[in-house]
Amino acid sequence: MDLFVRGGTVITMDAEFRVIEDGGVAIEGDTIAAVGRRADLEPKAGNARRIEAGGTLVMPGMINGHAHAAMSLFRGVAEDHSLNDWLEKYIFPAEARNVTEDFVLWGTRLGVLEMLRGGITTYADMYYFEDIVARVTKEAGMRGVLGQTIVDFPAPDHRTPAAALAYAEKFIERWRGDPLITPGVAPHSMYTLSTENLKAAAALSRRMGAPILIHAAEAPFESELSHKKHGLSPVAYLDSIGLLGPDVIAAHTVWLDEEDIATLVRRGVGSIHNPSSNMKLASGVMRVVDLLAAGQAVGLATDSAASNNNQDLFQEMNIAAKLQKVTRMDPRALPARQAVEMATIGGARALHLDDQIGSLEVGKQADIILIGTAATHATPMYNVYSQLVYALNAHDVRSVVIAGKVVMEDRVMSTMDKPGILAKAHEYQRRISASLVEVRAI
Amino acid sequence: MDLFVRGGTVITMDAEFRVIEDGGVAIEGDTIAAVGRRADLEPKAGNARRIEAGGTLVMPGMINGHAHAAMSLFRGVAEDHSLNDWLEKYIFPAEARNVTEDFVLWGTRLGVLEMLRGGITTYADMYYFEDIVARVTKEAGMRGVLGQTIVDFPAPDHRTPAAALAYAEKFIERWRGDPLITPGVAPHSMYTLSTENLKAAAALSRRMGAPILIHAAEAPFESELSHKKHGLSPVAYLDSIGLLGPDVIAAHTVWLDEEDIATLVRRGVGSIHNPSSNMKLASGVMRVVDLLAAGQAVGLATDSAASNNNQDLFQEMNIAAKLQKVTRMDPRALPARQAVEMATIGGARALHLDDQIGSLEVGKQADIILIGTAATHATPMYNVYSQLVYALNAHDVRSVVIAGKVVMEDRVMSTMDKPGILAKAHEYQRRISASLVEVRAI
Repeated sequence: MDLFVRGGTVITMDAEFRVIEDGGVAIEGDTIAAVGRRADLEPKAGNARRIEAGGTLVMPGMINGHAHAAMSLFRGVAEDHSLNDWLEKYIFPAEARNVTEDFVLWGTRLGVLEMLRGGITTYADMYYFEDIVARVTKEAGMRGVLGQTIVDFPAPDHRTPAAALAYAEKFIERWRGDPLITPGVAPHSMYTLSTENLKAAAALSRRMGAPILIHAAEAPFESELSHKKHGLSPVAYLDSIGLLGPDVIAAHTVWLDEEDIATLVRRGVGSIHNPSSNMKLASGVMRVVDLLAAGQAVGLATDSAASNNNQDLFQEMNIAAKLQKVTRMDPRALPARQAVEMATIGGARALHLDDQIGSLEVGKQADIILIGTAATHATPMYNVYSQLVYALNAHDVRSVVIAGKVVMEDRVMSTMDKPGILAKAHEYQRRISASLVEVRAI
Repeated sequence: MDLFVRGGTVITMDAEFRVIEDGGVAIEGDTIAAVGRRADLEPKAGNARRIEAGGTLVMPGMINGHAHAAMSLFRGVAEDHSLNDWLEKYIFPAEARNVTEDFVLWGTRLGVLEMLRGGITTYADMYYFEDIVARVTKEAGMRGVLGQTIVDFPAPDHRTPAAALAYAEKFIERWRGDPLITPGVAPHSMYTLSTENLKAAAALSRRMGAPILIHAAEAPFESELSHKKHGLSPVAYLDSIGLLGPDVIAAHTVWLDEEDIATLVRRGVGSIHNPSSNMKLASGVMRVVDLLAAGQAVGLATDSAASNNNQDLFQEMNIAAKLQKVTRMDPRALPARQAVEMATIGGARALHLDDQIGSLEVGKQADIILIGTAATHATPMYNVYSQLVYALNAHDVRSVVIAGKVVMEDRVMSTMDKPGILAKAHEYQRRISASLVEVRAI
């Protein structure tokens, strides 16, 4: 045994939803070797490094199924606009003026730092210069499913979709097989890419055996456009061009009819729910309860800090559970345990990585978080799932282990220079503010 | 000058929404003597105690317009039930078995501790043994509008409504005129009290010049009952019996028609929005945008930790803004600044205390909080309101001043014994868990 997470209430998120009081997790290399009672594991611990977990909840690292980490530098830069306006009038121009390799380097560091501190151990990302995103993620010791963005218009990193596809191919070649990084292709959406370029992105993905990350059926304007241009819903259109399959991670999937739900399930697509972003941009409410009932793999996500404005998956669990209840007028909709499932094993399924992550089980990757329960706002505690979803928050995360490596212990980072990252973020804030004076004047 | 809050970005929430960079607040006794630029106030500070506010947001203490603080001991005790089931099958029986004077003492301490640590300086409470609630609140140095609960059925503190009314009268006599405590009467709701007893509660309130706190138009079953019994909506019924007036604080007010909105405005009633509770219990979505447009005073609240499950007004600001946007499918609905308004000066109006609290203005009570902005999740910052609503959280509150007294500085409490309170909460958890075995067996 190399590492022994010792004591605490172990929430396995396995098929039986076992919760082990005074439990423990034994880790060999990057892998979980045993999960059980502390007393049973103790004799085998030998000289293994100990992480004392007494008084904490020990659970699988959380999985953020859809992010644009570098956009953390745009946190709160433009508010109170619809998705379409927000993208066209603010975000795309702001990106054109500011997004360089250096921006992506520091923005991703900021986003990854926030995610790790909040107990997220795996994230899916869609952005530009994704090779830099991969380097930052690897340096931080975090797990990522990282998609190089393809759009029809001139992007910050490439002037043409062909150039972006060529970059994506090299990016995938460089990173595939990496134990932490799963490189992929991210055709942005059906409204920012032609059919031809969507097909080209899908072809590249299939040729390289890499996942496709895409925004799908996010907002009403997208559905309208799809029906007008193709006579089909966004999901039906994407399916008609052969894009959907068991390698696809579809962010949002809000605007779905019964047929669309059946299509997603049949094709083995993963769905990612972004409740904060969908509420804030008034995109709509995902039919989470219906999707889960149909057997769809559903993960949970923060979306970018520009549309949320944080990378806090505790908040998303909280809001996801409450939003389903009130919109269905049924307080039993999406109980707390299902929200925790979406943030862990459900997210792993949606990212097609459930053989490796998402639960504390022997043979899986040792991605583990420890959450303190001593805070006033978490006292008393009657039910662990209820507490995770409705009372605890990102700040209560004490320690984070990824692939058997301790990346945060008692809130001290071991792989990232927090003061340096925050200083750079302030520098960028000044630069971005200056650039936005121009954007607003357009 | 007795106390000088020195530096920081001062968010006044005054009529002009002035925000002062490198500002300051001068305090004499319990009152704000000056608000301005640090450099202008500095020469007058003399030997005043300093609170260094550099790098923080300095704003009016937040106002929690509807709580049942003692119920913090029931945090997460029963989940995924409708309001009616939750009350009848779980909460009322759990209360009958557990709620004593000692329970209210420690439960209120726990709730008040959590509120103070999250930047709440004033709260409205409705519970049993309210005299004890007042004692705890006063001890903690917090401000409270505290209503003694009246219900028709035998309550934990009184077997009859007449006994509860008699207690309420003594309670009001004892506390009225207190600088921190505003005692009131809390007839629970139109569905737990007869017309006769509602009228008696209102009469007592008017005779004593004390506010009325009531749950009103919270959930569909209440509307149905009101229409069936009285042929009127809950608001119309309460108005028909003379209960509504400028001394009434109505929690929830979710199920309103146009006539009801006009009635609330005309009568000068304050409305309190509880988004988390309304979502979690599937009570419905308050028409906040319509109420504000009609000129209604609207505050924000957590409701109890049994239906939320925390006392975090940052979370309520966040959820309130997002919930209006998505349910109206309009991203411009309830912008960040309006959410901050509801948590401060709007809440003060709804509690009929806006001449004393809710903004940083000369002559008002010195209820001030300092919020740190150095955290990763709050970097960078482009707009203070956006940051408060969408990025910062209760844990970022550093220091709290109420009526000129420092009750928390750099997260250290000066008026409350945190370890002692948490230890007692754990003791109660064991006792309540045991009692619930019986409740569930019913």
